[in-house]
Amino acid sequence: MASRRPTLRLFAQCKTKPQFNHTWTPRRAASSFQSSGSARQAVSNSRNYLTLAAAGLAVATTLSYKMAVEDPIRCDSPTLAERDQQIKREKGVNDASPMRLRMEKFVKEQQKEIVRALEEADGTPFRVDEWQRKEGGGGITCVLQEGKVFEKAGVGVSVVYGTLPKPAIIKMRANHKNLAQEDDIPDSLEFFAAGLSLIVHPKNPMAPTVHLNYRYFETANPDGSSGAWWFGGGSDLTPSYLFDEDAIQFHKSLKEVCDAHDKEYYPRFKKWCDEYFYNKHRGECRGIGGIFFDDLDETVSDKENTFAFVQDALKSFAPTYISIINKRKDMPYTEEEKRWQQIRRGKYVEFNLVHDRGTAFGLNTPGARVESILMSLPLTARWEYMYEPAPKSREARLVEVLKNPKDWV
Amino acid sequence: MASRRPTLRLFAQCKTKPQFNHTWTPRRAASSFQSSGSARQAVSNSRNYLTLAAAGLAVATTLSYKMAVEDPIRCDSPTLAERDQQIKREKGVNDASPMRLRMEKFVKEQQKEIVRALEEADGTPFRVDEWQRKEGGGGITCVLQEGKVFEKAGVGVSVVYGTLPKPAIIKMRANHKNLAQEDDIPDSLEFFAAGLSLIVHPKNPMAPTVHLNYRYFETANPDGSSGAWWFGGGSDLTPSYLFDEDAIQFHKSLKEVCDAHDKEYYPRFKKWCDEYFYNKHRGECRGIGGIFFDDLDETVSDKENTFAFVQDALKSFAPTYISIINKRKDMPYTEEEKRWQQIRRGKYVEFNLVHDRGTAFGLNTPGARVESILMSLPLTARWEYMYEPAPKSREARLVEVLKNPKDWV
Repeated sequence: MASRRPTLRLFAQCKTKPQFNHTWTPRRAASSFQSSGSARQAVSNSRNYLTLAAAGLAVATTLSYKMAVEDPIRCDSPTLAERDQQIKREKGVNDASPMRLRMEKFVKEQQKEIVRALEEADGTPFRVDEWQRKEGGGGITCVLQEGKVFEKAGVGVSVVYGTLPKPAIIKMRANHKNLAQEDDIPDSLEFFAAGLSLIVHPKNPMAPTVHLNYRYFETANPDGSSGAWWFGGGSDLTPSYLFDEDAIQFHKSLKEVCDAHDKEYYPRFKKWCDEYFYNKHRGECRGIGGIFFDDLDETVSDKENTFAFVQDALKSFAPTYISIINKRKDMPYTEEEKRWQQIRRGKYVEFNLVHDRGTAFGLNTPGARVESILMSLPLTARWEYMYEPAPKSREARLVEVLKNPKDWV
Repeated sequence: MASRRPTLRLFAQCKTKPQFNHTWTPRRAASSFQSSGSARQAVSNSRNYLTLAAAGLAVATTLSYKMAVEDPIRCDSPTLAERDQQIKREKGVNDASPMRLRMEKFVKEQQKEIVRALEEADGTPFRVDEWQRKEGGGGITCVLQEGKVFEKAGVGVSVVYGTLPKPAIIKMRANHKNLAQEDDIPDSLEFFAAGLSLIVHPKNPMAPTVHLNYRYFETANPDGSSGAWWFGGGSDLTPSYLFDEDAIQFHKSLKEVCDAHDKEYYPRFKKWCDEYFYNKHRGECRGIGGIFFDDLDETVSDKENTFAFVQDALKSFAPTYISIINKRKDMPYTEEEKRWQQIRRGKYVEFNLVHDRGTAFGLNTPGARVESILMSLPLTARWEYMYEPAPKSREARLVEVLKNPKDWV
């Protein structure tokens, strides 16, 4: 079959053309990570979409990378994805492996850990979808819906290989000078991106929604060695009813992790979080914050130290959040309180669809897996015209704090 | 009080400074348009916000005008708003009045008519909020919530006087050459904008949601005469369950109105509607369409003829929609069908918050009345991960039609 795309044609001339899958291929696992061998299956299956991604037609979906991608044009040397496959096959993944493979292994392990912890808290198994994208790339999306404790919980991993075209390189150089020399910007650059995203919306209005995302980005030099790299991520809490002790516990846990790596991290990333998750048209923050950072590269710390920080931050999530959930999940509540939660959920939807750059990027990516991006939306939400909480009510106090972010630790 | 804004200071030097109202002042009418004198009150109150708007600090809110506005700098001649006030005071509004005043009068009359018709269909009065904006401008927002027939219905009018800065004039000249001479673009241009917007979300999943918007825009020459002008608007239907006869009736009514003015209108505006209300990330139209047009100026038809067309289109709305509602409002439905409606409402929210240019413009306007813009959102919506209607079901047929818009007449 002759391709109309010159780069694909080039590719086809170089080697056996991979089997492109022209539709989404979600696979519903018979049971969850915890209760069967499907997790192992998912991990071993990952080779399939890495093979597809080797075509280089990859785009981040649930990840908020600011880039456009195009087809690869090289056919004389192996792609980054092919190199990585070979390393995995021959040596496995260990502490001496490239950061790409270590991050991929780590987020996939953490996905299983977190899914297991949330399943245990809820008593309901997650649905597990492993997916590929015809343009290349893929991921694993785990969703629990209408559980006993959680109205909706999504934990997703994406691993992407692709090629940055020159305009994207020029744009990214604004924040990352070492992406390329100013007087020698290449026509394209291979990149890798991997990350974990999660959002949990509990049923009980006394239990807070939580969001977390950690990601790693890297470009490849022509010889396959690592070029520019950076980590990004964070975690933030969105209660409908504010329990100060939960906010303090959540922030304290993040501060401890930050402080163990750099005393400047927490104050800087806490502020960054309040600024990023700001619902501008409502004049209030989405929730009571947490930490957020982007573009954490060698100008801040070295790769090993930053990976260690990201590992600690991600590992600290489940114990802290589950502890908060266990305190709130069985609290009594009224219909009016459920209604307030639904109104807050509406504001959550507004932030995610109007202001969140990651969601916008994902939705604007042709062929993106929309259901993996929008797993972040709550099961239900409500918009009442001119709804105002009663003065001095608990609802009014929450809004007051959202309008004036507090220091919790 | 000394103002930090030079143009406001200038204004203050020229005349008695108007009373700026620095917070929103929604006024809850004791009863609806229909059941009391509040409608007359609303109309006579409109002078207040015209007076405020005379400060020239006006921005369209529920209207999707592509412009930025700034303070006026002239103080030697009356503003457009002041001229209009004088005309209204001395001569009233009749067929010889400037189009600004005729359009304002017409949309306010239509707002009352439509609110009355919807109240009659539902048996529940609308809440009526007349509002002003500290930067200038204002409107009347009427909302009915949790009625017997309608889950949520909003009918809003905005009337805005303001000043276009030079960059906005240059941008708008792309579509309207007669806005200014290319070699003589003024530093600013006074403008007027007025329009009516409505969205109705019925309770019964068999009854379709409807949206309508008609608007008029005009700039003023330095002598106060009309400069460039154009009309925009349209109306479209969004069913959860597709009744072909409803789609045909809705489109037929629009085609009749269009054909009476120009046989080319309906095919052109029908296509424009399908293209505009396209939910790109879902690959489907928001609903089954209707008509949509923008920038209808002297290159298409003269002002009188276009106003006559807009009048006929707006007047045809209520009889057609109420007739469809009356056929559907009492139909039996299951919980599953209500759930499908809620899922479709989720898609409606996605379109309005992610893709609708009018909503984006409104939300990005500093100081905009957010509750008037977001009255378009349904009372409730639902997002289920990977929800797919059963093959060959009525739900699947709707999606099929949304992906491949039909010709209904």
